[in-house]
Amino acid sequence: MFANEQRIKKHIENLSQFTKTPGAGVTRLTYSEEDLQARNYIKDKMIAYGLTVTEDGFGNIFGKLDGVYSGAPSVLVGSHFDSVPNGGAYDGTAGVVVGLEVAALFQEHQITPTYPLEVIALIEEEGTRYGGGLMGSRGMTGLFSREEFESFTDANGQLATDAMKEIGLDPSKVQYRDPETIKAFLELHIEQGPILEDKAIPIGIVESIVGLAQLEVTVKGRAGHAGTTPMNQRKDALVSAAKIIATLPEIAVLESEDTVITTGRLQVFPNGANVIPDQVVFTIDIRSTDEKHLFQAIEEVKALIETKNENGITTFVEQNLYIEPKALNKEIRSIFKQKSEELGIPHCSIHSGAGHDAMVFADVTASGMLFVPSLNGLSHCPEEYSDAGDLAKGANILFEAIKQLTESKIM
Amino acid sequence: MFANEQRIKKHIENLSQFTKTPGAGVTRLTYSEEDLQARNYIKDKMIAYGLTVTEDGFGNIFGKLDGVYSGAPSVLVGSHFDSVPNGGAYDGTAGVVVGLEVAALFQEHQITPTYPLEVIALIEEEGTRYGGGLMGSRGMTGLFSREEFESFTDANGQLATDAMKEIGLDPSKVQYRDPETIKAFLELHIEQGPILEDKAIPIGIVESIVGLAQLEVTVKGRAGHAGTTPMNQRKDALVSAAKIIATLPEIAVLESEDTVITTGRLQVFPNGANVIPDQVVFTIDIRSTDEKHLFQAIEEVKALIETKNENGITTFVEQNLYIEPKALNKEIRSIFKQKSEELGIPHCSIHSGAGHDAMVFADVTASGMLFVPSLNGLSHCPEEYSDAGDLAKGANILFEAIKQLTESKIM
Repeated sequence: MFANEQRIKKHIENLSQFTKTPGAGVTRLTYSEEDLQARNYIKDKMIAYGLTVTEDGFGNIFGKLDGVYSGAPSVLVGSHFDSVPNGGAYDGTAGVVVGLEVAALFQEHQITPTYPLEVIALIEEEGTRYGGGLMGSRGMTGLFSREEFESFTDANGQLATDAMKEIGLDPSKVQYRDPETIKAFLELHIEQGPILEDKAIPIGIVESIVGLAQLEVTVKGRAGHAGTTPMNQRKDALVSAAKIIATLPEIAVLESEDTVITTGRLQVFPNGANVIPDQVVFTIDIRSTDEKHLFQAIEEVKALIETKNENGITTFVEQNLYIEPKALNKEIRSIFKQKSEELGIPHCSIHSGAGHDAMVFADVTASGMLFVPSLNGLSHCPEEYSDAGDLAKGANILFEAIKQLTESKIM
Repeated sequence: MFANEQRIKKHIENLSQFTKTPGAGVTRLTYSEEDLQARNYIKDKMIAYGLTVTEDGFGNIFGKLDGVYSGAPSVLVGSHFDSVPNGGAYDGTAGVVVGLEVAALFQEHQITPTYPLEVIALIEEEGTRYGGGLMGSRGMTGLFSREEFESFTDANGQLATDAMKEIGLDPSKVQYRDPETIKAFLELHIEQGPILEDKAIPIGIVESIVGLAQLEVTVKGRAGHAGTTPMNQRKDALVSAAKIIATLPEIAVLESEDTVITTGRLQVFPNGANVIPDQVVFTIDIRSTDEKHLFQAIEEVKALIETKNENGITTFVEQNLYIEPKALNKEIRSIFKQKSEELGIPHCSIHSGAGHDAMVFADVTASGMLFVPSLNGLSHCPEEYSDAGDLAKGANILFEAIKQLTESKIM
């Protein structure tokens, strides 16, 4: 076991200082002053660990350790370094820091890989500034064009390209990265859920990233005075919405163990204590690792909503988002498993309930992910915490896996 | 049948012009410029119909037709003339206009009552400017003191007494009215519900005004990522709240026909589509005409909420308001019934689901109320509408009832 727990801890702490909201979690928006500070820190460390630094036309950072084969495809390791507003110090950053740690270990052990190693720090995974999310990985894999990128603006109407220039980035640089130049993409991320903590297992080997459908449901009824409208004459939009929401967990549990259904956002109209609601609008987020289960859950939820379309209540469903489940590379999973076992690190298979950059890379290259436990399952909040010892375990597994994938001869 | 439908219609139309929101319903706040305009109109008509006009230290308007017995207690008829924001032309105003119509009929038929008749136009029933509601009737019946009134301020911090002076009213005038000077209080009001319209009956004789409890419920759970938190590890505050709200109608229906339960206001925290809600706050409005049923319904609702206080979900209930049910005077109800029958006007008994000034007067004098149908049951909106023919029917019943109560000798 080689990874330096204290070094990992220190990088996490240092990077957490680059926040717009000191004392209230990490707020690091893409192309902000804090992005520039974190970016310079990451680039400095890359250089210190013997990597050659480049930035692409989105500001994604690459620190490359050349391999024996000149021009051979690289093994990428890393994650994103932007945050949600008032988020934590680990989401994304942990994966970048562990990537740096792998480079530090390559340097300390004077390893020259056959295939190049690249530590990667991606922009705008959260979608906080430009919406949509996964912008760094989607951009470099060609999921949107340069022209499209040039039209991206933030909530203040500022062009992304102008924001880049403000912190000294050059959007005219190369943006698309040919998948032929990538041998694999590996990402460590915090779990953002309670499973590993509950099982007391430090490493989850991600089998797949869930598919996701997001519905927006509108229930329309008829307003009325809370005192003067008899129960049998009501068309109460909130009671109908409540019956739907109360039933969603049953559908999820009956569907499969991996299916989750959530109503997170709900608004009542007109929202007065003595007025029967005439409209309720709410979201339904449905996720499953198995597309068959996902489809069935969507159909069952829609059928449930349809049953409330009666007696003066009308229901409308709009599907705003659909992302198919994505299995991660089987060979990389088995390498992770083998290395964990060799290192004596307890591990288990896990599904990712959230989207990650690895999901985007999985379409173009062999991709793998490791999860480490999140304290109390918390994420996207200042209390977000993962143990540096667990991060070091992840770094050790990645180090061993990357030595194998880069066909490093030393050791 | 004597009431003049066209005159009633004209008064309603003219008074509806005194609004701060032309084209968007009636907005007539107490002591506003529009209050002054409506006030002057009402006082002019009172004078035209032979009444002697006075205003008390709240600005309540009294138009008195003296009786044969000097100093005998008066039969009061009327309602309030303030409105909610963007309300309708009928709520309150209809009762004032019908009161004026009764005075017009006394004049036209040259009737001298034995006991005095007073047409009354009350201020601030809605509580729009000073909160709480029923301020005119509560003030004159002594439910708050002059000192308390002198501390009342509106949302801008302006004292009610200063606002009165701005439209030429004098808060130093007499405020309390000795109940010994009141023989009865009669009020016509729009139903604000769908019952009379559904039954196609033009007149409802109000049997009682419902009692009311208002609860504020807080459900606390634990936030979590919608994708990464398994169903069996969730403490979803919204699912628990939904189960409560979905069950409320059953409690109401099982309790009694007159019991209604409503959740009108609800807020979800943090209210993000991909975050499991950690807190939901909502109101429960419980009403019944029978205090026993009201108590039982409150207990059953509280017990239901308590059943959700488990598995990491905590529930809190605060009772913000309790008003006991109020039966209206039996003798006056029977006079209304008799007069309706003599006039051949279809009528039925009805309960009032909303509070009214008559509820306040019921504690100090014989009080009665008539309802007329509300188109589509709507109220507190620009679409509020009642038929002038129904208002005329109400005026005719009141005319006959008041002749009897004032012991008028003519006719």
